[in-house]
Amino acid sequence: MDYERRPDRIYAESFRIIRDEADLSHLPDALHPLAIRLIHACGMVDVASDLRASDDCLDAGRAALAAGAPILCDAEMVARGIIGRALPPDCETLVTLNDGRTPALARDLGTTRSAAAVELWRDRLEGAVVVIGNAPTALFHLLEGLQQGWPRPAVLLAFPVGFVGAAESKQALHDMAPALNLPYATLLGRRGGSAMAAGAFNAISLDLRGDGT
Amino acid sequence: MDYERRPDRIYAESFRIIRDEADLSHLPDALHPLAIRLIHACGMVDVASDLRASDDCLDAGRAALAAGAPILCDAEMVARGIIGRALPPDCETLVTLNDGRTPALARDLGTTRSAAAVELWRDRLEGAVVVIGNAPTALFHLLEGLQQGWPRPAVLLAFPVGFVGAAESKQALHDMAPALNLPYATLLGRRGGSAMAAGAFNAISLDLRGDGT
Repeated sequence: MDYERRPDRIYAESFRIIRDEADLSHLPDALHPLAIRLIHACGMVDVASDLRASDDCLDAGRAALAAGAPILCDAEMVARGIIGRALPPDCETLVTLNDGRTPALARDLGTTRSAAAVELWRDRLEGAVVVIGNAPTALFHLLEGLQQGWPRPAVLLAFPVGFVGAAESKQALHDMAPALNLPYATLLGRRGGSAMAAGAFNAISLDLRGDGT
Repeated sequence: MDYERRPDRIYAESFRIIRDEADLSHLPDALHPLAIRLIHACGMVDVASDLRASDDCLDAGRAALAAGAPILCDAEMVARGIIGRALPPDCETLVTLNDGRTPALARDLGTTRSAAAVELWRDRLEGAVVVIGNAPTALFHLLEGLQQGWPRPAVLLAFPVGFVGAAESKQALHDMAPALNLPYATLLGRRGGSAMAAGAFNAISLDLRGDGT
C-alpha cells in the first residue's frame, strides 16, 4: 500500500497542512504553537476559534517546568500523553484519581472522584503545571478552591470534554482567570479531552519553534 | 458554584443529551451503543455520521473477550482509557510501542515505531480485539499484514487521528473489511484519537443496555 512511512516526514507534513489550513490570525504569535498542537491532537483546524488563553501561558509553564514544578493531571490518559523526553528530569507527574483516599473523600464531599482527587493536590499546587483533560468537576472543584485562597498553580491547562459541565466549567475559568491572575489555556464548548490537554502541555515542554513547527 | 456533582446524574444526563441530539437513524440498532460511546468520548454528536462499522462488531468483540482474547492497543493512552472493571480477569492488554525491540524493527522495516510495534502482535493476533487510536501507520501496517495472510483478529476498532494518513488508512479499512471478512468499526476522516478508540472498546465491554444508556 502506498503511504508515508517516514516519521519525520509525517510530522513535518502534518504541521505544514495545519499551518496551511488553520486560521490563527485572531491569536497572538505567542499562542500559535499551542493552537497548532491542539489541532494536531484532534485533527480539526477549527478548534483554534474556540481557544481562549492568556498570552503568557506557555512562558509561565516553561518557567515552572524549568524550576522543577510538579505536573498535576486529572486522568492517567492525560499523563500518558505527555512526551516524557521533553521534560526536565526532576518534574514529577502526579495523578491522584486512583489514590486510595479518593473514593472516601468523594463520598465525604458529595462529589465525583475526579473532584475529590483535586483535594489531594493542595499541598503540591503552588507553582504547579495543572493539566485537566477529562472531568468538568475537577476543573470546577479547582476553581472553587482557588476562589477560597488555595495556592496558585503556575498555569492551568483546562480541556474537559463532554455534555454536562464541560462548556460551563471552561467558560467559568475564562471568566475568572483575570481576577485570579492565573495563566491559563482552555477550549470553549464541549470539545476537549486528554489528547488535547496533553497536546497543550507538550506545546509548553517542546521547543516548537526549534524543531521547525 | 452551581454544578452537578453526582456521578450517576452526570452519567445519565450525558447519555440523555446524546440520545436527544444525535441522529442515529442511519445506523442499525446494534451499533447505537457504539455511536453513543464515541459521541460521549469526544463531545460531538455529528461523529455518528462518519461512523462505519460492521453490524456484528460489538457481538464479535464480546465473544472474543468472553473467550479471554488479548486486547492489542497501539498506544498507552488507548490502554489507559479502557475501563478495567468491565473486563474478564484473564483478558490481557498489550501495548508493544515501547517494547525494547520496536525501535530497531522500525529502522529495519523503514517505517514508524507504531507500525513496527504491530509486527510484534503477530503471534497474539488470532482472535484478538485490536484497538488503534493514534497512528495511521499502525493501521496501514496491520492491513498489509492481513492482506498477506496474518492471523485474523476477532474485531478491529480503528480510530487513528490527524492530517497524514488517518483518513486514508480508515477508508482503506472500510474498503477492505468485507473481503477480509473482518468485523470492524472506524470513523472516516481526520477525527479520531485514543479517547474515541477506548470509548468504542468500552461499548463492547460494558453492557450498555444493562446500565440504562
